[in-house]
Amino acid sequence: MNNFLKITIIAIFMLTSTQLMAQEKRIDYVNPFSGTQNMGHTFPGVCVPFGAVQLSPDTEMIPHNIDGKYQPDAYRYCAGYQYDDKTIVGFSHTHFNGTGHSDLGDILIMPTTGTVQLDMGTADAPESGYRSRFSHNNEKASPGYYSVILDDYNIKAELTATPRTGVHKYTFPKGEGHIIIDLAYGIYNYEGKVLMANLRVEDEYTLTGYRITRGWSRMNYTYFAVKFSKPIKNFGCRNDEKVLYNGFWRKFDMTNNFPEMFGKKLTAFFDFDFKEGEALEIKVALSAVDCLGALKNLETETAGKNFEQLRAEAEELWEKELSVIDIQADRERKAVFYTALYRTMINPSLYQDVDGRYRGIDHNIHQAAPGRTNYTIFSVWDTFRAQHPLMNLIKRSYSEQFINSMLDHYQQSAHKMLPVWSHMGNENWCMIGYHSVSVIADAIATGLNIDKELALQACISTSNVKYYDHIGDYLRLGYVPMEKSPVSASITLEYAYDDWTISALAERMNRPDIAAAYAKRAQNHKNVFDPNLGFARPKDEQGKFKEPFDLLDTHGQGFIEGNSWNYSFFVPHDVPGLIAQMGGEARFIERLDSLFTMELPAKYFEETEDITEEGLMGNYVHGNEPSHHVPYLYAWTSQPWKTQERVREIMRRMYKNKPDGLCGNDDCGQMSAWYVFSAMGFYPVCPGDGQYVLGSPNAEQITVHLENGRKLVIKAMNFSDENVYVKSIKLNGKAHLSPFIFHSELMKGGELVFEMAAEL
Amino acid sequence: MNNFLKITIIAIFMLTSTQLMAQEKRIDYVNPFSGTQNMGHTFPGVCVPFGAVQLSPDTEMIPHNIDGKYQPDAYRYCAGYQYDDKTIVGFSHTHFNGTGHSDLGDILIMPTTGTVQLDMGTADAPESGYRSRFSHNNEKASPGYYSVILDDYNIKAELTATPRTGVHKYTFPKGEGHIIIDLAYGIYNYEGKVLMANLRVEDEYTLTGYRITRGWSRMNYTYFAVKFSKPIKNFGCRNDEKVLYNGFWRKFDMTNNFPEMFGKKLTAFFDFDFKEGEALEIKVALSAVDCLGALKNLETETAGKNFEQLRAEAEELWEKELSVIDIQADRERKAVFYTALYRTMINPSLYQDVDGRYRGIDHNIHQAAPGRTNYTIFSVWDTFRAQHPLMNLIKRSYSEQFINSMLDHYQQSAHKMLPVWSHMGNENWCMIGYHSVSVIADAIATGLNIDKELALQACISTSNVKYYDHIGDYLRLGYVPMEKSPVSASITLEYAYDDWTISALAERMNRPDIAAAYAKRAQNHKNVFDPNLGFARPKDEQGKFKEPFDLLDTHGQGFIEGNSWNYSFFVPHDVPGLIAQMGGEARFIERLDSLFTMELPAKYFEETEDITEEGLMGNYVHGNEPSHHVPYLYAWTSQPWKTQERVREIMRRMYKNKPDGLCGNDDCGQMSAWYVFSAMGFYPVCPGDGQYVLGSPNAEQITVHLENGRKLVIKAMNFSDENVYVKSIKLNGKAHLSPFIFHSELMKGGELVFEMAAEL
Repeated sequence: MNNFLKITIIAIFMLTSTQLMAQEKRIDYVNPFSGTQNMGHTFPGVCVPFGAVQLSPDTEMIPHNIDGKYQPDAYRYCAGYQYDDKTIVGFSHTHFNGTGHSDLGDILIMPTTGTVQLDMGTADAPESGYRSRFSHNNEKASPGYYSVILDDYNIKAELTATPRTGVHKYTFPKGEGHIIIDLAYGIYNYEGKVLMANLRVEDEYTLTGYRITRGWSRMNYTYFAVKFSKPIKNFGCRNDEKVLYNGFWRKFDMTNNFPEMFGKKLTAFFDFDFKEGEALEIKVALSAVDCLGALKNLETETAGKNFEQLRAEAEELWEKELSVIDIQADRERKAVFYTALYRTMINPSLYQDVDGRYRGIDHNIHQAAPGRTNYTIFSVWDTFRAQHPLMNLIKRSYSEQFINSMLDHYQQSAHKMLPVWSHMGNENWCMIGYHSVSVIADAIATGLNIDKELALQACISTSNVKYYDHIGDYLRLGYVPMEKSPVSASITLEYAYDDWTISALAERMNRPDIAAAYAKRAQNHKNVFDPNLGFARPKDEQGKFKEPFDLLDTHGQGFIEGNSWNYSFFVPHDVPGLIAQMGGEARFIERLDSLFTMELPAKYFEETEDITEEGLMGNYVHGNEPSHHVPYLYAWTSQPWKTQERVREIMRRMYKNKPDGLCGNDDCGQMSAWYVFSAMGFYPVCPGDGQYVLGSPNAEQITVHLENGRKLVIKAMNFSDENVYVKSIKLNGKAHLSPFIFHSELMKGGELVFEMAAEL
Repeated sequence: MNNFLKITIIAIFMLTSTQLMAQEKRIDYVNPFSGTQNMGHTFPGVCVPFGAVQLSPDTEMIPHNIDGKYQPDAYRYCAGYQYDDKTIVGFSHTHFNGTGHSDLGDILIMPTTGTVQLDMGTADAPESGYRSRFSHNNEKASPGYYSVILDDYNIKAELTATPRTGVHKYTFPKGEGHIIIDLAYGIYNYEGKVLMANLRVEDEYTLTGYRITRGWSRMNYTYFAVKFSKPIKNFGCRNDEKVLYNGFWRKFDMTNNFPEMFGKKLTAFFDFDFKEGEALEIKVALSAVDCLGALKNLETETAGKNFEQLRAEAEELWEKELSVIDIQADRERKAVFYTALYRTMINPSLYQDVDGRYRGIDHNIHQAAPGRTNYTIFSVWDTFRAQHPLMNLIKRSYSEQFINSMLDHYQQSAHKMLPVWSHMGNENWCMIGYHSVSVIADAIATGLNIDKELALQACISTSNVKYYDHIGDYLRLGYVPMEKSPVSASITLEYAYDDWTISALAERMNRPDIAAAYAKRAQNHKNVFDPNLGFARPKDEQGKFKEPFDLLDTHGQGFIEGNSWNYSFFVPHDVPGLIAQMGGEARFIERLDSLFTMELPAKYFEETEDITEEGLMGNYVHGNEPSHHVPYLYAWTSQPWKTQERVREIMRRMYKNKPDGLCGNDDCGQMSAWYVFSAMGFYPVCPGDGQYVLGSPNAEQITVHLENGRKLVIKAMNFSDENVYVKSIKLNGKAHLSPFIFHSELMKGGELVFEMAAEL
């Protein structure tokens, strides 16, 4: 071969592989900024799929309360970052994905130059503190990688992550530079949140430390270990707390090169000398057990690897997990789809050290059984709807670990309850229902390999804890009376559905007595349905319906994050019954149509929390969860094409590839999971029943690589923006006439072909 | 055999065995009340030898400070109990033995009847709270057992302990009774001490919980598990803290049968129904790791055993450990001796779970190597003198564990230092010097099996931490300048001795360079000796001695817990040099004589802390430690009989079998160890040199059962109160002419015979 030929071949090969790479990289489509503006509450920083560390820039700290007074602005900072802000205060290691309550923001790190500043300063006068101005022009984010220029210091900041380690790379200008570690910073901060913080300089490259906080999580134990790539030249801290006692005659100068700093309000600095353009890499591993755990995590996951290698690993992990689904669509749809898929793989999050130790809900140190991995962050009121069902289809191995973590939670709980809303070894009791039973029933309905007897026991136990949110009243009366709870009707509706899932589970396990008992409880939704009004409506202990009553108001009417109009449709386990209750099919369709088309007076919209105006379609609220199944309810009528129309409209209008691309909180992936399902052309209206309702796919072709090795190919023939209607469906060549499809059918793989059209 | 004969034989047998028992029981001689009045700071309750739990009645809680203002009365309650008090506030599970600073008092339990009261109330009006009146007439204490009648409730309270479990037995009158658990109570309490407390009702017999406190110990993690012998009827709590968030819409009624109580100011109650005279037994196990550790400790140590069985085990443990020494003496001497011996076996205390897990000084969870047991509570400024040397003679297996725990501390320390004053996984930095090096040098000098290389490394590292208490200045100048520390002369003297022990250790390890370097440092005591004055005296950086200067004042003169008169004798490693420095033997003897006989003006005595008037002999202060070796210094002169006279006088006057039987803080056994050594007739003036100075034994015969299986019999021929002088000494029949005796000689066993006389 002559040289020319060689070079040509190599060039062609390089070109081809580059093109192939370009074609194949799903991570390039993900836009981590989506949802960072307004109400999405997503973070733009880095993590690996379901990783323990979510390292991300924070742009402001608004205390959750000052002197006991709630500060409403804090809500905007649930994820620490708001796209409209002009400054970055630092990079902290833990963030929720899209929640409507907040916490975390542990271990804030900020690189600076010039005079050491230990206050963060204000956005108006960034020079008053360690924060820095930045521009979105200099900011990049993709799965496993984030970078920004910190303008005030001319420092390039880059972030990546391993499962348990946040990895920083800061490229400094020539001269002295500093790393600030602010252990007083936090999301959902307030005076007293930090119960104690500790920071040890182990050697000139290594720090260990911890902070124990009482935020939304009652007791959050965050131990950490830090490795710098360069030796520390000098260090110190400021300790804003009055130290009661720190020696006898002596008072150590803890602020100056003293290797053991502690206090409730601790901000430390570390000085380094830099050549022009020299980079400092920092690895920060977390553990909920102890610093030894953090050190072991750091060592195991990062030893001998630099930033670039770890970034490549993080990107590879994301690419691998995102590769579960291939999609043929235009660039925008691909971006929205992969961004949504990405967001479904952040929470639940890993909560276990590499050696198998983890902190349980009982705050004990447990050793996980071989093959088991503990996860935390279960926002089940949100995620029972689609996020967990999605995992039961596309990430079944992970899902088994999630379910087992929930069952461990049950066994470790003082209440013998499954998670309600749990994070970092704590139950925070947020929102309503006991929807973990739905998650478990769905897992068993979809054939996950979990301990069924334990699962059933956990569900039964959870649903009978009388002191939890009026279960006692619910068992006594068949509904939660309005005197007892401001959201009594929502609770009753959701308990009834949850009870149905237990009934279904018991039936599947051939336990007819239990199934019958819970089937009876599952009828309780009828007790808060006013047949005269035709809507759900709270009732008092004497059985009298609420007066006065406003069907449209989300507040003060007995519902939560939804008004009676929306919530009245929350009977996912008995839609035919609901149709009858609402006066038959015609009136049901009319009701659904009205929901999506009526004009909601502005006063109601303005009072609806968590959502942007884009999150409304008539009176239908997509920015909150209670109605997520509602667009699919037409499937039970003779007009399933209205589902097709609505879901395509929701996908088009409410999910966008831009910072304000989400119309409400992502809620630990629920908003995104709704999209992923809907884009595939089906949705789990009633998790636990083992089936999906068919809708209208949003891509020419979607291929799901199932864990069992089979491939499910979803084709939309004649796909276009206009062609939202499904003329026919074929499953493996055979006409599929039902509006429903079983999970078990999909798990066999094959081709699900929708024939699309612009008209019926 | 006819019946009469049978009965007679049985009767004789019973009588004999009772007599034998009576003769043999050392525990019957121990008086746990000794030192509970005034300054002894001992506790009268129960523990097993070196046990993790010290369960004892507390009679008052005086906050250490209120709004940052020190409350001097708190000092009296270092052990929670003062004999003069008339009420008991409850029984808590952790107590120091005789310290001069305080902490602990974890997990207070109090049984009551009548209306549930959750405040402790005041001593003036005990009915205002859960506390109760009591009388010493109804109070008993012996090793492993304590009982009292709580008059306000007619409840008999009995306590015993296992290594990690406090065991309570409360005999109630008929009707409803309560158990109060006050997690806000503590010794060294102040607003904010409890960082967080948690209490879970696991089932009707079982509780788990923890509290994390910041007292003298920066972070003390106390996890616990409780087993009741009867099921709980009803329970609840009061939570004085404003709870920021505990649910979403719901506010749980945490105060009423809610099984997960938490807060910084938590007091819980548990109701039970009792028949007349029915007893409730409560087992409370501790762990510094987690509640699982506590449950495992409880299970392993107490499963299937009731109070009486556990009491018998505790008593047996004490009897076994006290049996290391037999003493022939009158009852009073035996009582004082065994009480002292008992007090030398409380601290250090076990700090490890049955499964080998323990919390290190780095707050990490460590797994102890097989055969290793971690201990805590090292008050080494006190205990390097006699308590540790005593263990190196009579409890060598324990001592090896202590030394290894100290070496682990070194390895886990951020400062790479051995303990200064450490407890519960924390260094509290109390007092001066780095006397752990003495403890380690003495251990190696007496042949304990420890890692010598690690030990030497630890000593060298510790003695070179420049930021610790002016070591930097000390290395630079050869003394600590008075500008830098108010106790600069004491520090210099003690560093010099400590350096000598490192030198001796290095020599023993054949490391002549290190030995020479430290031998040089060991001469630094000369730098704070004013040759004109003939006394130790602080110096400024320029080398100028302090002006004005008061030889007698304990305060403000550069010394701590001792004046220059006393401290000038602190050159235990070079007494001949000191004699020369003081102007030769005659002047040295004169100086010693003056010390013991001069009249100390009342103003000086009144200002001397920690001691009662009985703790003074002239200007010699026995109630504090710096002069403990001084009575033995006559041994280096031609008048060793003065040592004999002084030590017998100190033993007679300053150790008594009564509540105010100690003339100062017991200081983790140092005061008591001084007695045990002195009563045996010798004392370790210079720990690390492998020898003792002979004094005057205080019993007719003392037999030490050495761990090597040999017996050391110390006989005092012609022993009497008056016969304080030693006419001759024979070791195994051979005349022993030296005033010193080697540890190695004693370890061979045999007979050490003192011939006593009333005159010389």
